[in-house]
Parts: sequence; C-alpha cells; structure tokens
Amino acid sequence: MLNPQLSADGRLKHLITLDGLPRGVLTEILDIAAPFTEVAAREVKKVPLLRGKSVFNVFFENSTRTRTTFEIAAKRLSADVINLNVATSSTNKGETLLDTVDNLCAMGADMFVMRHASSGAPYLLAQHLRNTGRDHISVVNAGDGRHAHPTQGLLDMYTIRHYKQDFTRLTVAVVGDVLHSRVARSEIAALTTLGVPEVRVIGPKTLLPSDVERMGVRVFHDMNEGLRGVDVIMMLRLQNERMQGALLPSSQEYFKFYGLTEEKLALATKDAIVLHPGPMNRGVEIDSAVADGDHAVILPQVTFGIAVRMAVMSMLAAGN
Amino acid sequence: MLNPQLSADGRLKHLITLDGLPRGVLTEILDIAAPFTEVAAREVKKVPLLRGKSVFNVFFENSTRTRTTFEIAAKRLSADVINLNVATSSTNKGETLLDTVDNLCAMGADMFVMRHASSGAPYLLAQHLRNTGRDHISVVNAGDGRHAHPTQGLLDMYTIRHYKQDFTRLTVAVVGDVLHSRVARSEIAALTTLGVPEVRVIGPKTLLPSDVERMGVRVFHDMNEGLRGVDVIMMLRLQNERMQGALLPSSQEYFKFYGLTEEKLALATKDAIVLHPGPMNRGVEIDSAVADGDHAVILPQVTFGIAVRMAVMSMLAAGN
Amino acid sequence: MLNPQLSADGRLKHLITLDGLPRGVLTEILDIAAPFTEVAAREVKKVPLLRGKSVFNVFFENSTRTRTTFEIAAKRLSADVINLNVATSSTNKGETLLDTVDNLCAMGADMFVMRHASSGAPYLLAQHLRNTGRDHISVVNAGDGRHAHPTQGLLDMYTIRHYKQDFTRLTVAVVGDVLHSRVARSEIAALTTLGVPEVRVIGPKTLLPSDVERMGVRVFHDMNEGLRGVDVIMMLRLQNERMQGALLPSSQEYFKFYGLTEEKLALATKDAIVLHPGPMNRGVEIDSAVADGDHAVILPQVTFGIAVRMAVMSMLAAGN
Repeated sequence: MLNPQLSADGRLKHLITLDGLPRGVLTEILDIAAPFTEVAAREVKKVPLLRGKSVFNVFFENSTRTRTTFEIAAKRLSADVINLNVATSSTNKGETLLDTVDNLCAMGADMFVMRHASSGAPYLLAQHLRNTGRDHISVVNAGDGRHAHPTQGLLDMYTIRHYKQDFTRLTVAVVGDVLHSRVARSEIAALTTLGVPEVRVIGPKTLLPSDVERMGVRVFHDMNEGLRGVDVIMMLRLQNERMQGALLPSSQEYFKFYGLTEEKLALATKDAIVLHPGPMNRGVEIDSAVADGDHAVILPQVTFGIAVRMAVMSMLAAGN
Repeated sequence: MLNPQLSADGRLKHLITLDGLPRGVLTEILDIAAPFTEVAAREVKKVPLLRGKSVFNVFFENSTRTRTTFEIAAKRLSADVINLNVATSSTNKGETLLDTVDNLCAMGADMFVMRHASSGAPYLLAQHLRNTGRDHISVVNAGDGRHAHPTQGLLDMYTIRHYKQDFTRLTVAVVGDVLHSRVARSEIAALTTLGVPEVRVIGPKTLLPSDVERMGVRVFHDMNEGLRGVDVIMMLRLQNERMQGALLPSSQEYFKFYGLTEEKLALATKDAIVLHPGPMNRGVEIDSAVADGDHAVILPQVTFGIAVRMAVMSMLAAGN
Repeated sequence: MLNPQLSADGRLKHLITLDGLPRGVLTEILDIAAPFTEVAAREVKKVPLLRGKSVFNVFFENSTRTRTTFEIAAKRLSADVINLNVATSSTNKGETLLDTVDNLCAMGADMFVMRHASSGAPYLLAQHLRNTGRDHISVVNAGDGRHAHPTQGLLDMYTIRHYKQDFTRLTVAVVGDVLHSRVARSEIAALTTLGVPEVRVIGPKTLLPSDVERMGVRVFHDMNEGLRGVDVIMMLRLQNERMQGALLPSSQEYFKFYGLTEEKLALATKDAIVLHPGPMNRGVEIDSAVADGDHAVILPQVTFGIAVRMAVMSMLAAGN
C-alpha cells in the first residue's frame, strides 16, 4: 500500500502519523524547520509563504495549547486562520463529520489542522479528500485518540537533534503512561526511523500496552534500572483521570516509583536531557527541581514546536 | 416609506431582508459576486477592498457555520474581523442591546454582521444608526428570528442563475418547514422579484404559514404532485426540535412523505437542480443518494455563498 | 524600591498600575494617544508599529468588552493577536500560572494583556519575566481583582483632559461602589498624580473602603452635597451581585440615593461631564436621561480607550 501521506514522487501531502514516514522525509522536515527558529527571533516574526491561504483549525476535542501553537505558526506564515471549536457547532445539529468537512472545503480551505477523539479521523479525512478529487487540500493531524500526535513527535526529534546531533549513538527512555499516550507512539516511531539504537520504555505494567515489545523497545518496570546510562529522557504526562481509576494506586505512589527526581536523573548520563510534552503535573510525573533544572529542555521544545509546525505547513502548501 | 436598506440614490446601505429589494439591486449583487468566485480559486485568496476596516460579527445566537462564512469573506477582503459571541458577554451584565452596539460603534466599527433570535433586530440596529447620525456604519443581517436570512437567499439565487441562467422560465419548489424558516421567506421574496413565474411551496399543513398563499405561491401538500415538472428544488432543513413536538408524527414518517428521494426527484425535469441550506439531516428531509447525486448543487451553494458575502460587504463598504 | 513598570532610564516597560506612575509618564501616554484617535477616523485604520509582533490576550476572567478593545487596538497596530480564554484551558489540567506563561513565552510572545481575578497577578508575571531574563516581553494589566485597571484609568484621564484641558483647576467626584472597584483605585491615583486639587468620593459607608480618606480624597455619603460644584462626575458600575447581598437594601433604594439623575446633575457646574466605565445599569447607578444627555461623555471614553491602548502598546513595543 502506498503511504497516503506522500505523493507519487515522495513529497509530503498530509501529516497523519510518523509511523511509516521515511527517514529522508523526517530529516527534511527537521532541516526545513531550522531557519524558522530564526523567524521567531526577528523584529517582524512573519514570512509570506502562506499568504492568502485559508487554514482551518478544526478541533473536535478542546485543546487550547495545541490549537494556539498551530494558530501562531499559521499566522507567522501569513495565512488566514479560522478556528472551529466543533464541539459546540453543527455536529450538534446532526451533521456528519464528512458533511462538515465538505462544507469547509467548499468555503475554500487549503489546509485542515484536525484534533479528534477518535483514532484515525485525520486519515479518514485525507482519504475522503482523495476520493472526492480534492488533492490540493492538506491535512495535519493535531492528535487523534490514542493513535498519533505527529507534530509533537517531530518537535521532540528536533529538540533531541539540537542538543545531541547524532541519533545513532543515543539511548532514549520514554517514561510513564505509554498505554494512553498518542505522543509516545509518535515518539517511538520517529526514534526508530531516525536510527536510535536503543529505545526503552519505563512504566508500570498497567500503563504499558501488552504488545509493547513489538514496537522494538526494551521494557523496564523499575525506573532506576531503566534510566541507567540514558542520554535522553522523554517524560509523558499522566492524565488525572487515570489516577482516579483502578490503574494507579495514588499520585503520591506514582511519583515515588515513576516521578522523575534529581536522584533518579543522576542515574542517566551526565549531560542527559529531559523532555516533557506539557502541561506538566509537577510532583506527579516530574519533580519541580528537575522541571526547572539544567537538564530540562521543556521550554525549548515549545519554541522548536512553532518552527516545526511552520516547516510542515510550508512543505504541505508548497507540495499541493 | 423609503426602503431603509437603500440610500436616497438607490445604493445598498444595509442588507436586512430581500423583501422589497428592487430587482436591479438584486441583480447587481449577483453580478458583483461573479468575479469574487475567482478570488477563491487564486493562489493568494485576498483582495484589499476592506483593508483597515473593522467588521464585527455580533452573534446573539450561536451559529458556527454562518459566522465562519462571514469571517472568511471579510478576511479575504482584508478586513480586521472581531468575533463577538454575545450570549456570553455583557448582555449578561444587564446591558441593553443598543448600549452594546453604541459601544462597538465607539470602538470604530465599520460594519456589523448580526445574528439574533428576535425578528427585526438588525432593522432596529440600522434604524438606531440612522437616528444617531452614524450612517457610515453598515448592517448585514445574518439571520433574525423567523424573519429573514438574506445572504442565504442571495447565494441561492446566485446558484440558480449559475445553473439555469434565465429566471423567467423556471418553476421552483420550496419544500419542507416553511413556517419556521427564515430561509424560505428570503428565497420566496427573491424568486418573485427576479421574475420566476411559478413558485411552489410543498409541505404538511402544520409546517406552512396559514397565509402562505398571500406570498404569491402555489401550495401543495402532496410532494409527488408538487415536484412534477419543476426545474429547481429548494429543500429546507427540518429542525430537530420540531420533530419532537406535536407538529410532526416522527422523522421516519416525515421522510416518507416529504423526504427527497431519487424516486420523487424523477418527477422533476431531467436536469433539475437540488439546493439545501445545510446542515443536512440525511434520511430526514433528504436521502443520501440525492444529497450526493448529480442533481445536488449543495456544495457549490457554499462556495457561491462566500463570493456573495464578499460582494455584499464590498458594496456596503463602497457605498458608506 | 524601583518602580517595576519603568526601565532604569524611566521608560515604560509594563503597565501594571497607575499608582506610583510619575506624572511625566502619565502625560506622555496621553500625548502619544492623541494622534491615534485620528487613526480610527481614517479610511484604512491601521499603522504598522507592531507588525509581526505576537500579542497574547490572556484572560483568566471572562470580559468580552475589555478583550475586544485590546484586540482592536493590537490589530490596528498590525500585531498578530492570540486570544486565550484560560478559564477553559490547561490551568484546568493542573498546570500552574507560571508554567502557562512560560509556555506562551516559549511560543514567542512579545506582549501579554492579562485579566485575572487575583490582585497582583500581572505584577507577579512581570516579576517572573524579569527573574527569568525575559525583559523584552511586556505586561499590560487588563484588570486584576480589586486592585487596578490602569488602561481604564488612563482613558478616563484622556477624556477629562480632552474636555477640560487643565487638571489643576478641577473638582472631581467618584461615585458609587469604590470598595469593590479596581477602576476607582486607578482613577483616584491618576487624578492625584495629575494635580487635581480636590477628589471626592461619594457612596454609602458599606461601599467605601474603611481607610478611604488615606487615598487623599474627601468623603461624602450624601450625593447632593458631594456633587455641588464638581466639574467631573465619574460614575462606577454597581455589580449585580452586590445588590443581592447584605451591602445594599435594593437597586431602587440605591438609585434613589446614589443614582445620577438630571436633578442631582444640576448641582454640578453648568458644563460638568459625566463618565461611566460601562457596561451601564440604567436605572440603577445612572438614569437614562443622563446617560443619553448632553453632559455624558461615555461613548467618547470608549473611542479614546482604543487610542490609549494603542499608545500604551506602541510605547511598550518601542521600549522593549
């Protein structure tokens, strides 16, 4: 099967998932993102690459933070941005997802940035656009169910490359609630593609997928063991609703075993970096001393995230 | 009485209703809309006609879809657009409608796009602007109560003209809940003005106004009879709340008698077109086979809707 | 202690409060605002002073009106504006205020316009920016708790100067619920700094701070006495929730004693002006005859408010 994200000549048409995205394309995105980090530092933070294009942020699930990063990226590319919080909109009136999308296409959409609670929704959208002969419209997945959050994965890769340069010499640990995390899936796929020789996942059995080894990772239930000698620690957010369920005893208990403290961090290499997708639960998955410490690269992640999203959007606009 | 929508020399000052709007003005709007359909097809979908103008979308009733079409139209004209969802705003704080409006005028509004649950609210606003010597500010009615939704009516006329050219040889049927529909009123007024010789309304007695014949239409309660030989079928949306009330037995029952199926559509002329204002209730007022079939022009309506709104806004800005 | 709003060489870095702001700076803001009133009257209401800057409207408390005025001001300065209604955002997800702010900084914010229910929140933000070496980012207080609402105070001063020119010959009365009003505090501070020889506050004991005399004002509980001979009457909004509490007998009772009627207004000088920050409760703190009468300058206040906010934003952008 052809990768639906790529055109026949291998250019990026949509960004749905990092799973199956060739190393060359991944690297190209990171390369294109680099100069966009400079745009953010300029007096006038604007380039005209998407001038007169209509970008629709279609959020079927509320996420102010993610929507804001895409809104900023699109505005810095000079696009016209339309925010649609579809939770309060015509889907309430009994309209189907595809009818909503068809309408937005008819309004002249050039790009959809879509967040949806159901895994696969952005893929369905891309497929529908192809089936209806609207190949010039792009889809960016801004998070779908437990499936993927590719721009988060990309900004993580950008951050790791920025601080560590060479992926092929790294040991990377992904820590926490892998089971419910779309971020984790995107991260593991990208790390593997970019040639990281050892990816570890660390977490309690109840928060790891049963087939986690099939993702090509080493599994640790003991965090002290798992962190030994790693170069990169990628923390995951623990969602509050998990803590109240049967999966976890309590947030204090969780912090004791899987919260990243300075003590545990000392087991990693001397210049290890710590990533977190935010928003952080301080004192649950991460201690404030680490979050605000010298190893944390959590705020640079956010900055690089704008550049990576600008890169993806400009590539899609150029390709379509 | 002077038409409050027109200036002394007959130019469009406000767009409140299609009722009473002269044929010349109607035709002028459609003519001006035509080149705007090309703007949407360009690389850079922008013209500077409203550059530096402040357009306020003041929605006292929530409608993401309609607000979005106006927002896109205004942004493509390069206006600064301010969205106000007044349901959650200072009207809650006991402020009157006119005080809210006066404040927005004082902020430098050039144009109001207003949606309101009460029939006549945009007319009151236009009157208030005249009484307070603020004739340079325009009002566009984006739907008021059961009264009117003139830009919807205009885009329907644009669509009919696009596919059928000459209004004076057409038989047009408006089908469904005419009683509660502001769209139907705007459509019938415009069709009559533009010289359509036969306008039919089709629906159950409970969903037609008691004085419907006074609108100059032929009334049918049997859809099969009513559709015979028509060139244009304008479906109306059936609002869910009606289906639960005493007015209708059930949505299945409604579909059986008044839902547009391929079988019923076959009674119309061979090249009849089917319009629907959206959002559609598939399987209630329209069958999916028709909605997605060759006769449907429902998505072109949306596209033409942006052009028509750009035309109206640019005419108002030029006139005031 | 250094004034945290000013740089070492006395330029405006943040706008947190009018309390302690030197007369020179206050006057400078009003002087700079003057030409911006002309921008609002132009065909193209736009200047490029903040082009490519990212302004974040961060509202932890909902206020459509205030947010709109800042949004318009920023857009007329050509800034990219991002509206964040933080009530519905990641603070819900357990993130701290400073983490939210750090993230927005990392996205490339140039300016924060902040509304918060807690007094002192914008000050904390400015302090945090300094402590973390992000001195190039500015903070504008758009209302914090009962503390301050400096742009409202500034637009009031602009309005008074516009109609009365010389502050040093005026008698000014502030009327109503001073106790709960951040507006009143900002007004009294500015009036005193600008050299108004007599500032009066008028209100029932239950709605005046117990130490109100320490603000350098004359206190009146009888409105007829307090208004005698004043040049400027600054009405305060009576919040509905006060009326239901133990602080007030009823809104009719309040109107009788402290509502501004034409009769009471006649006690002031012949050309006295009446200000109100909006939204008005007609028939509670102000009679419609006065609100719509010749002495009211309530709508000019709104117009001047846009110009004053443009002035403040452009000064901050130039200084940082």
